[in-house]
Amino acid sequence: MSKIRVGVLGATGAVGQRFAQLLANHPFFDLTVLAASDRSAGKPYREAANWILTEPMPARLAEMTVQEMSTELDCELVFSALPTSFANEWERKFAAAGYGVFSNAGTHRMDSDVPLILPEVNPDHLGLLERQRAERGWSRGFIVTNSNCTAMPMVMSLAPLMQFGPQAVIATSLQALSGAGYPGVPSLDAIDNVIPFIGESEEIKMNTESNKMLGRLNGQGVEPAGIKISAHCNRVPVSDGHTVTLSVSFKDKPSLGDIMEAWQTWEPLPQQLKLPSAPQPALVVRAEPNRPQPRLDRDAGGGMATVIGRLRPCEVLDVRFVCLAHNTIRGAAGGSVLNAELMLAQGRLEAFVAGVGAHVSA
Amino acid sequence: MSKIRVGVLGATGAVGQRFAQLLANHPFFDLTVLAASDRSAGKPYREAANWILTEPMPARLAEMTVQEMSTELDCELVFSALPTSFANEWERKFAAAGYGVFSNAGTHRMDSDVPLILPEVNPDHLGLLERQRAERGWSRGFIVTNSNCTAMPMVMSLAPLMQFGPQAVIATSLQALSGAGYPGVPSLDAIDNVIPFIGESEEIKMNTESNKMLGRLNGQGVEPAGIKISAHCNRVPVSDGHTVTLSVSFKDKPSLGDIMEAWQTWEPLPQQLKLPSAPQPALVVRAEPNRPQPRLDRDAGGGMATVIGRLRPCEVLDVRFVCLAHNTIRGAAGGSVLNAELMLAQGRLEAFVAGVGAHVSA
Amino acid sequence: MSKIRVGVLGATGAVGQRFAQLLANHPFFDLTVLAASDRSAGKPYREAANWILTEPMPARLAEMTVQEMSTELDCELVFSALPTSFANEWERKFAAAGYGVFSNAGTHRMDSDVPLILPEVNPDHLGLLERQRAERGWSRGFIVTNSNCTAMPMVMSLAPLMQFGPQAVIATSLQALSGAGYPGVPSLDAIDNVIPFIGESEEIKMNTESNKMLGRLNGQGVEPAGIKISAHCNRVPVSDGHTVTLSVSFKDKPSLGDIMEAWQTWEPLPQQLKLPSAPQPALVVRAEPNRPQPRLDRDAGGGMATVIGRLRPCEVLDVRFVCLAHNTIRGAAGGSVLNAELMLAQGRLEAFVAGVGAHVSA
Amino acid sequence: MSKIRVGVLGATGAVGQRFAQLLANHPFFDLTVLAASDRSAGKPYREAANWILTEPMPARLAEMTVQEMSTELDCELVFSALPTSFANEWERKFAAAGYGVFSNAGTHRMDSDVPLILPEVNPDHLGLLERQRAERGWSRGFIVTNSNCTAMPMVMSLAPLMQFGPQAVIATSLQALSGAGYPGVPSLDAIDNVIPFIGESEEIKMNTESNKMLGRLNGQGVEPAGIKISAHCNRVPVSDGHTVTLSVSFKDKPSLGDIMEAWQTWEPLPQQLKLPSAPQPALVVRAEPNRPQPRLDRDAGGGMATVIGRLRPCEVLDVRFVCLAHNTIRGAAGGSVLNAELMLAQGRLEAFVAGVGAHVSA
Repeated sequence: MSKIRVGVLGATGAVGQRFAQLLANHPFFDLTVLAASDRSAGKPYREAANWILTEPMPARLAEMTVQEMSTELDCELVFSALPTSFANEWERKFAAAGYGVFSNAGTHRMDSDVPLILPEVNPDHLGLLERQRAERGWSRGFIVTNSNCTAMPMVMSLAPLMQFGPQAVIATSLQALSGAGYPGVPSLDAIDNVIPFIGESEEIKMNTESNKMLGRLNGQGVEPAGIKISAHCNRVPVSDGHTVTLSVSFKDKPSLGDIMEAWQTWEPLPQQLKLPSAPQPALVVRAEPNRPQPRLDRDAGGGMATVIGRLRPCEVLDVRFVCLAHNTIRGAAGGSVLNAELMLAQGRLEAFVAGVGAHVSA
Repeated sequence: MSKIRVGVLGATGAVGQRFAQLLANHPFFDLTVLAASDRSAGKPYREAANWILTEPMPARLAEMTVQEMSTELDCELVFSALPTSFANEWERKFAAAGYGVFSNAGTHRMDSDVPLILPEVNPDHLGLLERQRAERGWSRGFIVTNSNCTAMPMVMSLAPLMQFGPQAVIATSLQALSGAGYPGVPSLDAIDNVIPFIGESEEIKMNTESNKMLGRLNGQGVEPAGIKISAHCNRVPVSDGHTVTLSVSFKDKPSLGDIMEAWQTWEPLPQQLKLPSAPQPALVVRAEPNRPQPRLDRDAGGGMATVIGRLRPCEVLDVRFVCLAHNTIRGAAGGSVLNAELMLAQGRLEAFVAGVGAHVSA
Repeated sequence: MSKIRVGVLGATGAVGQRFAQLLANHPFFDLTVLAASDRSAGKPYREAANWILTEPMPARLAEMTVQEMSTELDCELVFSALPTSFANEWERKFAAAGYGVFSNAGTHRMDSDVPLILPEVNPDHLGLLERQRAERGWSRGFIVTNSNCTAMPMVMSLAPLMQFGPQAVIATSLQALSGAGYPGVPSLDAIDNVIPFIGESEEIKMNTESNKMLGRLNGQGVEPAGIKISAHCNRVPVSDGHTVTLSVSFKDKPSLGDIMEAWQTWEPLPQQLKLPSAPQPALVVRAEPNRPQPRLDRDAGGGMATVIGRLRPCEVLDVRFVCLAHNTIRGAAGGSVLNAELMLAQGRLEAFVAGVGAHVSA
Repeated sequence: MSKIRVGVLGATGAVGQRFAQLLANHPFFDLTVLAASDRSAGKPYREAANWILTEPMPARLAEMTVQEMSTELDCELVFSALPTSFANEWERKFAAAGYGVFSNAGTHRMDSDVPLILPEVNPDHLGLLERQRAERGWSRGFIVTNSNCTAMPMVMSLAPLMQFGPQAVIATSLQALSGAGYPGVPSLDAIDNVIPFIGESEEIKMNTESNKMLGRLNGQGVEPAGIKISAHCNRVPVSDGHTVTLSVSFKDKPSLGDIMEAWQTWEPLPQQLKLPSAPQPALVVRAEPNRPQPRLDRDAGGGMATVIGRLRPCEVLDVRFVCLAHNTIRGAAGGSVLNAELMLAQGRLEAFVAGVGAHVSA
């Protein structure tokens, strides 16, 4: 099978670099385009990107020329690491021009016709794409979004527990610095400190986006799961890896053993399909009393796994536990890459496999 | 008025150093004794203590000779920074020998006849001392304990809200490294990391000790407040200052304005008495969305204040907010110093003011 | 004596905040003006300044209105925390308009008629002011600069050793994050990392500015000291406090005892004059093998002392040692405040004591 | 070819874990033994070792039973991560019992008959083994040591420059926390701090061990290189990766271009032999002004490369530059693994390939 040619939008930023890294040697996708703002366009990527990942920049990317933003890019799919304002301007243009858009931006996540996908959790929500195309008049293009980086480990932990009827969640996040991008948090605010605030909308997203992902596709819309979710979001001096402590109540009052079994026996679709970026297993449950820890657990499953620990009763709700995931891999770029792998495996990308430049005439 | 002569037990450790610092130039107390384990005894304090506080060791302490543990120490009151095992062995001996013992150890906090005191919250619990002396047969000596460092900011925040009938609390702590003492947490566990576990009993203490402090003195015992408290305790790479995020439900459903007013108008006893270590005000309520932060707020009120911020509704319980206090000052040594100031102001230390060495013949 | 009214230029930045803090309750100076860029002008200081110092903002500053930059400010002296480009534009204007300018900017430090002063080291260099006024045609105003924050502890350490003829120095700095201002270094570059580069000119300044400060006033110019100084400048994840390791060769081959005695008996002019900001002693020599450390030593002498340790022979040059100072106090704002105190004590500010607004008609 | 069976001594500590990780899937060696102190013996490795590496423990190690120290271990070669006191007791016993010992301990490095090897630098020093066996009466066993972790990047940088006659070096290290092992440096000493001291002997080792490695094998002894090396050793809050700044003088006054060419064209023996752990290239020379940085460069070449940058003239000696290497990989465990690979490639391990348990009857 020939690979589908893909591009990264906003390729020089923190999440853009992760997309580039994850796509540089992908079995299904051929990374042909790195696009960014005017300031970077025309420069070789090694010069345009202030590479901040700890593994060296893949050699084949270093000499690629960064292209300016345009809907004439020579690829079929684009992975968007655009900041909100640019995402708002560009993502619809790309979809209208016939590109498949996999976005990490928050812009369209809550649009009623845009799938917000965690492949382990709600792969069926891709069914929204028919409505999306019909309503927006897009013949080939589409927009599919990935989860917010903080909601992600919580939703992954709750998904196998939906059978028990979760009703209320109080979540406290300890979020990594890389979640704020680059340059992001000034070092004088980060050293020897905690900031109990991420931004106006982070705690709201934890509620709305999580309920959308855990909701049901109903006709052509998603009915939110109806879980009350209250979040306390905090920044801590950790480079990568968001930790979330959770108290949860359930309608059906499962035992700790029921919950543990639900986690340990969970084998959702991406793992069954053995998608290249799907971690095996999806959830890593640690038995030690002091895990998960970001330094030791964020790279589990190549940064794509969710690590859970400390399951115990809660005096107020029913149970307490801790979950963790790598915020720029599984909680951002890797999430969209897995979304694309899933769509390809499901035959939803056939129009893009076929030919080159089809979008130009779309 | 002549000062009461006091000593520090466990004077070379992290909390012991704080006691020594806070008592070195105290208006009511004369620090005459620094006692520690055999290993340190006989050495000058500057040599025995690996001084880890950022302000230099007070000059008058440097040349004091560290004494070995014994109930023949030349002072009236002792401030105990002993580790649990030693506290268990020594604190009762000191009290039996006629010393007043102000303890930071967890050993006796939950004993039914031992006051666990935050002077702003439950000064009346000192009434337990009559029962303590009667039951234990102590003619002059006593044991009074200060709060656990993590429960402390939560209890201070809840105390003015007791009028609204708090029923349930979910608390997540982000605790400083100094809470583990010295050498405490290895740096390889702390750098770029979070540890979602403090120890077997920390989360239990958050429940039991808080309910004792917020409870009512009933006859000669304390009736716990009956609040359901569920804690998630975490270690973060911060030197000093414990941050706690809270979700709280109330019987009487106060408005945010009611709560804010209760905090801002609270003027408890130590502040009314203008005790030397009492911060003015007891609670500092910050209006900025991103406060309190340990680096910026832990030293408020000389490290004795509790700083509160981010009051907002909670989707699951009633309200959410964040509180913070300096864990080795207000949450440890400073707490006991304020307890002693309170007892002195209340005339409860008259037997110790009187004379020198009275305990020897007690 | 009535206080001289002073202002801070660039008052909202990191060094501007230090100036404001140090001048808020100064015995000689009355802080009447906080000036900053257009963006901040008109706002109360508590709102305009994102206060990053760990001690709370002094209450009397919080409600002062930030003024826009202009030479009509209602004060006699200005302390400049302006960035280089603004310093270049404004400092001469202020001096020409009759203000005394005490500058932390690098802009004019190497001008041949501008004193670059460490009061302990080269107070006589203030003699350059006559030439400065004559050449520039300023009747009352002047510019006096303080040392670069990294050169400062090195120069303070070398000054008492000038009698031995220092010939060559190899210095390696481990510089704090606050030296880069705010927002300054991104946290993702600082966490778990060292950056072996401060900027194009830092290592050059270590050579040229140090030699100017250690040089001799000769007629009306400063003859550089002629010491070969080679610097390696590094950024480390420390909030405040620059550490510098030094290897030094001397013409006269002093013994370690000679050097130690020179340091310990040094009592330079500001200490003799007991200037309010002069640390007593100027140099703190620590005997422990593992000192100075920024966390424990940066606040020595209120952040105004230089702390020295680890004096030992060098296999290549003659001796090795380590020195440290607080970079935003002694190495920046506090340096200029001490310069102003010195000039006042020497009677060099009489024209400014006299009246109010004299500069307006200058 | 069948693999040689190997064991790790001190397998539960920080360096022992690195040995276990690097040997778990080695093409030449079969890790059959994990040995440690009595406290750990008999437990499965997953339980005995408090695994502190960020990559998960290799699955095949988790269930291996930790064995107690004894010269009856079922392997041919042992890799020693023993602390000095144990190394002193055990390494000679193992060699006498017929094992080949590859040691990271400092104990025997300076013994005149013990090779101290960096395979890129002085592979010929293995010639000392004939003298070692003869003098010590060992028929098959031997001791070969790897470099100190701080001397290592300096020696690697200087090796290709030996042709220019280096005469004097002033080196300042910024050393990672993992260099002190686990628990090692307390977090309260590491956070927001620098410690300008590693231990009594670190600076001496930088001189003596480096001169031994860069020296010449002369008859049966090593003649030290005779370079004057003066080191300033510092601990910084970095998890892994030692950075060293260097000023160097040369007899032959090479140009910067000469030096750059020497580094870039250097292809020493392990690279020519394509040994499995040999990084390609041995030296990575970065052109950016702000590299190397531990966070970005320590994992170059799988943690086995030395990264160099900032070559520029020195005002005192001749040139300045910065070098960096991963202290627990290349500077410790990986160094000994590469030593073993080299000896195998050179046919020096034939006695160990032959059979099983030969040492028992040795």
